[in-house]
Amino acid sequence: MWTLKEDEVAAIGVGASILGAGGGGSAYLGGLQLRGLLRSGHQVEIIPASEIADDDLGCGVSGMGAPTVGIEKLPRGDEMWQAVHAIEEHLGRPFRFVVVGEVGGGNAIEPLIAGAYGGLPVIDADPMGRAFPELQMDTFMIYGVQPWPFALHDPQGNSAVFGPVDSPQTAERIGRAATVAMGGSTALALPVLTGREVKAHAIHGTLSLVHRIGAAVQEAHRAKDNPVVAIGSVVPANVLFFGKVVDVERRTTGGFARGRLRMEGLGEFASETLAIDIQNEFLIAYRDGVPVATVPDIISLIEEESGLPLGTEALRYGLRLTAVGIPAAAKLKTERALLVVGPRAFGYDVDFRPLPGDLPEAPLAGGVIA
Amino acid sequence: MWTLKEDEVAAIGVGASILGAGGGGSAYLGGLQLRGLLRSGHQVEIIPASEIADDDLGCGVSGMGAPTVGIEKLPRGDEMWQAVHAIEEHLGRPFRFVVVGEVGGGNAIEPLIAGAYGGLPVIDADPMGRAFPELQMDTFMIYGVQPWPFALHDPQGNSAVFGPVDSPQTAERIGRAATVAMGGSTALALPVLTGREVKAHAIHGTLSLVHRIGAAVQEAHRAKDNPVVAIGSVVPANVLFFGKVVDVERRTTGGFARGRLRMEGLGEFASETLAIDIQNEFLIAYRDGVPVATVPDIISLIEEESGLPLGTEALRYGLRLTAVGIPAAAKLKTERALLVVGPRAFGYDVDFRPLPGDLPEAPLAGGVIA
Repeated sequence: MWTLKEDEVAAIGVGASILGAGGGGSAYLGGLQLRGLLRSGHQVEIIPASEIADDDLGCGVSGMGAPTVGIEKLPRGDEMWQAVHAIEEHLGRPFRFVVVGEVGGGNAIEPLIAGAYGGLPVIDADPMGRAFPELQMDTFMIYGVQPWPFALHDPQGNSAVFGPVDSPQTAERIGRAATVAMGGSTALALPVLTGREVKAHAIHGTLSLVHRIGAAVQEAHRAKDNPVVAIGSVVPANVLFFGKVVDVERRTTGGFARGRLRMEGLGEFASETLAIDIQNEFLIAYRDGVPVATVPDIISLIEEESGLPLGTEALRYGLRLTAVGIPAAAKLKTERALLVVGPRAFGYDVDFRPLPGDLPEAPLAGGVIA
Repeated sequence: MWTLKEDEVAAIGVGASILGAGGGGSAYLGGLQLRGLLRSGHQVEIIPASEIADDDLGCGVSGMGAPTVGIEKLPRGDEMWQAVHAIEEHLGRPFRFVVVGEVGGGNAIEPLIAGAYGGLPVIDADPMGRAFPELQMDTFMIYGVQPWPFALHDPQGNSAVFGPVDSPQTAERIGRAATVAMGGSTALALPVLTGREVKAHAIHGTLSLVHRIGAAVQEAHRAKDNPVVAIGSVVPANVLFFGKVVDVERRTTGGFARGRLRMEGLGEFASETLAIDIQNEFLIAYRDGVPVATVPDIISLIEEESGLPLGTEALRYGLRLTAVGIPAAAKLKTERALLVVGPRAFGYDVDFRPLPGDLPEAPLAGGVIA
């Protein structure tokens, strides 16, 4: 068991923003809130999936909505826990744990806040090992966990419990429409899970992993070392590009932040260009028009000056960034998974070209890596 | 108590379509289904509100969505009852009755189908005495009944229970967005009501009333008498116009059928024009540019040949129609109500100009009028 300490929160935020591929929302506000909760006596216990019973019930937690909205519309605080509790009440059965719905960006922090409010342990695992724009895009949905009941809760206190729904895609469509009507940003509790399902389908150890990545980057920052090298000391990392942002095309439609980023190369990449397609996350990177990293692999943009990763909502002209490619977890790269999270699932006529290696998964037994 | 007979269904459909002001959806398919249920042994009991206990619980039932979608997307049959049952399950408390959510068009029939499936009596009352496009526009919402929990159920079996919500307008906004995502047409169970609330706020006797109006029109049709005179024998009715449709401007956006109808006069109205603003229902009629009937009063269009009322979805060039104005129920014409259902609530810079009289309400005690 890992009892979360206040000074570990920032590292989790940094690591989660690196694996977030630009998505998952900012970890800053959630991090502040979580640290305040820990300071005021709330506890968060993080446990490996091996410590929960097969028949225990819990649920996934994340935010739904465009990250461009999330930074303008402040969370109230307890909405993540309220969404979880709405399902407990609906089922008339208490939960024994919560699971991170996506370990990318602020969505890694929100379940820890829910755990703090609800007094429930948070499993050291998630079903993405990154962030994705749609809710059918996780290993629970890909490998057949029932997508309902699920709940949405907005900062005004409006709430809804959905289900039955006939597919994760229907859950996404109805949930997204409700989220837009609820102001563009909601807390999402989905799916309801048994311990058995978490053990079988989650990507394990990812909370520990983002903490280790974030701590390595923080240490590099203190030592004025290269943050990309620090990332590479924890997970396989490939430098895709270094350059300057020359164009950001961005629009928020239907609950998504969509767009395209264009960069011009510097240093060893001088005279080259990089373009990145965005749909909440960075999905495909093209160097001089050729795809060099493709979803589900992780594309992360690290700012030169701060050494910190940038979310899609923070992009602006003139930033000097290193584009880093990190291979996705193996469970996202099966034939079945690529139908849901490969480039073609997002409407791009591009093949998945895997980066070497896999995102490391912690062993199930033996406690956390950290 | 009124045990519904198969041969009364068509009259209810006709009368409801007249009070529907062009909205509420077609009563034809629902009528066929209800007659089939009655033929196969299901029973529907219609009782006055006075027969329910003050603390009994029930809920309103109607369809949500544009009537232009309702005619293309066939209902599955049990979705109205499933929506009601979703709330029963959510509350863990059985309902003792259902209430017509709006007595206009097919929405007068759907609660009878829910009652048949669920074995629950249907109250002889509704909160509109007509049809309206948005769910905050009824006497339950206007006079302060809590708008949640409410449920939506679509023909594919997808379901959701909403609440808390902070206002009927929020319920409308979120429910409408979910309805659009669910294909544009859903069954809506809203609101949950005590017997006390039904007695205090409903417009009473409206199922009996639409049955009487419809039966009078059917009788006029058989006798080749004027259907408008028949309507006037049951409720105050004003002939606003007689003429030919020369233009129908119609679009389905955001779950509503919006548009404008233009007619040229015939007979005593020759050389005059009528224009009607539409938002699911006929809202304001202008004769030669001057408002002659204004929402919440009821504007109904009766086809010359069939003697039957037309829904907004059935309008087309060349139809010869009589425009009839029927005064709204008194509960819709208070200062408080006009803030929600007067012309300005729909965005028109027009004052409410009441037609003479009120839609008659049946006395609470003493059983049905029929």
